[in-house]
Amino acid sequence: MKRIMLWVAYDGTNYHGWQIQPGVETIEGELNKALTQLMKEEIQVTGASRTDTGVHALGNLAVFDTGTNIPPKKVSYALNALLPEDIRIQQSCLVEGDFHPRKTATRKTYCYQIQTGEFPNPLLQRYVHFTYHSLAIEKMKEASTYFLGEHDFKSFCAAGSTAETTVRRIYDLQVEKKQELIEIKVTGNGFLYNMVRIIAGTLMEVGRGKIEPKEIKEIIKALDRTKAGPTAVAKGLTLLDYYFEEYPQWNKKR
Amino acid sequence: MKRIMLWVAYDGTNYHGWQIQPGVETIEGELNKALTQLMKEEIQVTGASRTDTGVHALGNLAVFDTGTNIPPKKVSYALNALLPEDIRIQQSCLVEGDFHPRKTATRKTYCYQIQTGEFPNPLLQRYVHFTYHSLAIEKMKEASTYFLGEHDFKSFCAAGSTAETTVRRIYDLQVEKKQELIEIKVTGNGFLYNMVRIIAGTLMEVGRGKIEPKEIKEIIKALDRTKAGPTAVAKGLTLLDYYFEEYPQWNKKR
Repeated sequence: MKRIMLWVAYDGTNYHGWQIQPGVETIEGELNKALTQLMKEEIQVTGASRTDTGVHALGNLAVFDTGTNIPPKKVSYALNALLPEDIRIQQSCLVEGDFHPRKTATRKTYCYQIQTGEFPNPLLQRYVHFTYHSLAIEKMKEASTYFLGEHDFKSFCAAGSTAETTVRRIYDLQVEKKQELIEIKVTGNGFLYNMVRIIAGTLMEVGRGKIEPKEIKEIIKALDRTKAGPTAVAKGLTLLDYYFEEYPQWNKKR
Repeated sequence: MKRIMLWVAYDGTNYHGWQIQPGVETIEGELNKALTQLMKEEIQVTGASRTDTGVHALGNLAVFDTGTNIPPKKVSYALNALLPEDIRIQQSCLVEGDFHPRKTATRKTYCYQIQTGEFPNPLLQRYVHFTYHSLAIEKMKEASTYFLGEHDFKSFCAAGSTAETTVRRIYDLQVEKKQELIEIKVTGNGFLYNMVRIIAGTLMEVGRGKIEPKEIKEIIKALDRTKAGPTAVAKGLTLLDYYFEEYPQWNKKR
């Protein structure tokens, strides 16, 4: 038996998120189905991020064990021939038999995209949150600096989360305007349930002038979900990439 | 009666092109249906470009006549509330009663997008042509210069076209690499049937080394469709914008 890791990109529009559920199409379900067909043995993947319904990914990760003779690096090609067009493996490789992406020290990066303007651009609608409101980008940039470092992010965690600790470290948080788009890119050692979408929703409130940038400090300190802004819609969110310090050969390969 | 013009953006993926046809969904059909409902009178639009199945637009144009009291500039808002999410009016305004976008001197700009790489990016797949082949961008740039100016583009016109003349003027043709994407942007006084897609298909052959850049001159001179490259797939094509010399107030408003 060997363990193979997959870098998985998908348009989440037509899926009920990552996690397998009976009666609906999910990313995990599609991967299991295609791998079971390819390997001619029952395969169940273990994913790194259980993205929600409508959330997209360029580099989510999944591992699985198999007795196959297909060279691990070729699995991506064979699997893409069996998967629907909106799921595409970007890379595959052999990992150690006990390797698990969620149990290895990593950083991951999400991007949240907002389109501002008078009318939605239909070519962007699947991947952005559209708002008629104009957003003050400089205020959003200032607010973003208060998230950096290690904090208890309980105020930015959806109710009902079962996380053991709500402490997380944010390494980088950039707010950038690119023509009609505003991109919020955040890198951390992990994220609580809905955390990136609540950060995005809060930064949009800052952009609209409803929250002052320096209030972010107090919102974090409050440890109270009701103090932060609303959860931004799922479709604007994309899991971009994982970064492994121990495995430099995996980083920026794609 | 007054005549109103619409700037129409759409994701063409789920439509059988612009032109109304029985039994299938088309952009023109959706516009007529929504306008008839909104105006409470039978409305039939006249479009500027009859884009093919799968082709997208940010700024196609349509005019229609109506007795409505809705202020022309507000029609866009009211219409967007009735249209499907993948069609969005970007602007509406009153025009002269005999104005027709196809009969007015204009320039229009198309963009053809290509993704090169090892694996398709599922977040781009609706809007790009994916190719495993690496494309020599400098050769494509050189080739693009030979299209500029007024030429008989018969070699770049699909068979069966009923155009009175195959002479067209290309004002600008840019090939640019933007990370994993190659963008071909072309502005002309009009385009023959499939002309932009044949230009894109030919430039890809240049990028692959199958056609030398300077051969473009001979291909144009040949007036023979079989000398040019293949017609690139529809989904990579987007009609970006119209430019009216006589109506500077319309340009770059959106």
